[in-house]
Amino acid sequence: MQECLFCKIASGAIPSKKVYEDADFFAFEDIAPQAPTHILIIPKKHIPTLNDITEADGPMMGRLMVLASKIARERGLDAKGFRLLANCLEPAGQSVFHLHFHLMGGRVFRWPPG
Amino acid sequence: MQECLFCKIASGAIPSKKVYEDADFFAFEDIAPQAPTHILIIPKKHIPTLNDITEADGPMMGRLMVLASKIARERGLDAKGFRLLANCLEPAGQSVFHLHFHLMGGRVFRWPPG
Repeated sequence: MQECLFCKIASGAIPSKKVYEDADFFAFEDIAPQAPTHILIIPKKHIPTLNDITEADGPMMGRLMVLASKIARERGLDAKGFRLLANCLEPAGQSVFHLHFHLMGGRVFRWPPG
Repeated sequence: MQECLFCKIASGAIPSKKVYEDADFFAFEDIAPQAPTHILIIPKKHIPTLNDITEADGPMMGRLMVLASKIARERGLDAKGFRLLANCLEPAGQSVFHLHFHLMGGRVFRWPPG
């Protein structure tokens, strides 16, 4: 997706504070952090939203969850706690239409979650 | 886990407003909804938190993500938008220590997410 901001970040065409990368995933610091730790985790595959994942994406999505848990541990959030979330469409707050999970921790979170 | 609230809900020992069930997952209405649609999706396997998922849980976690997307669609949230999230430990708001994802939609969500 030539015009997708997060595809450009994952490819390195646009710089970011990279946290993790492998063949399938890219993780980087959110540019407007809302918690002491605020990392975005994305699949390199361009999937616009959670509406667009298929059965075939299941294994990749599972690996993304395991990766999120690992990154949380590396940042010490396994002791401090963290909130993991994805927004689907504008009413939920999605602003970049490339699927991404927010991994946020290091503070107390309120309820409801926005 | 004999004393786990969500294990008891998944087994039917404690009643709930069931949304979905199969061999691996159970979904039900949150008892204190924070949005017009607020559903909890859990694995039947007793996993306390996101800290506790292993590589072996990856495929199951992926199916949970695909299921969340499907339930969202069935509730019309694929058009309205939704927020999907999990809290890990008390500082993040986790109150039941059986892994669960909140599927919330039908209203506008604020940022930060709690």
